[in-house]
Amino acid sequence: MVVKKHYTEVNADKVNMAGASNTTIRWLINEKTGAKNYALRLFEVSENGHTPEHSHNWEHEVFVLDGNGILVTEDGDFTLKKGDFSYIPPMVMHQFQNTGKEVFKFLCIVPIKND
Amino acid sequence: MVVKKHYTEVNADKVNMAGASNTTIRWLINEKTGAKNYALRLFEVSENGHTPEHSHNWEHEVFVLDGNGILVTEDGDFTLKKGDFSYIPPMVMHQFQNTGKEVFKFLCIVPIKND
Repeated sequence: MVVKKHYTEVNADKVNMAGASNTTIRWLINEKTGAKNYALRLFEVSENGHTPEHSHNWEHEVFVLDGNGILVTEDGDFTLKKGDFSYIPPMVMHQFQNTGKEVFKFLCIVPIKND
Repeated sequence: MVVKKHYTEVNADKVNMAGASNTTIRWLINEKTGAKNYALRLFEVSENGHTPEHSHNWEHEVFVLDGNGILVTEDGDFTLKKGDFSYIPPMVMHQFQNTGKEVFKFLCIVPIKND
């Protein structure tokens, strides 16, 4: 079935992973929605917040909705603002940091593991 | 390598598919970026425009950035505004129509076919 919602209808869960700070995640589309191949998540990083600095064996596809941040990676650092997008290949160290006062809000698409 | 751009740095190509009207597509992330599993595209549908009414054997994951539209499907019709998202399963007939005066702008993620 087709699913349609507003993102605010999906719970914002605190990201408790070690190294994360002031960050929530909303799983907009995942296996529970019926998706089999990739999941759509919305992150909100508050002032002074950041995601963990880490790497993993899957890619990220990112699109910035609001706010200002920096993407720190082993390939260099990239400022991020509304309308920016980024592709982060598997196994590349990366971290998202809010550099402003507003909430830094971005979409991040990841593969769904089918194993 | 990590890729970071603003969406306006990517060409907006007219969607010439039969049944499409006043619609452009920007392929933000795809095989050329290094992605192997799913592609991120940005559609802009101008006033009175629409995408084709069609179905196909792959899913859509959609997030609305701006404007107002309607998603017409065989599962029913859904109004779409900024912050709405939708999952459209494979083989479901669907069409996006702009119902406003502003550009109706949305992200649409599709699988990359690896065959």
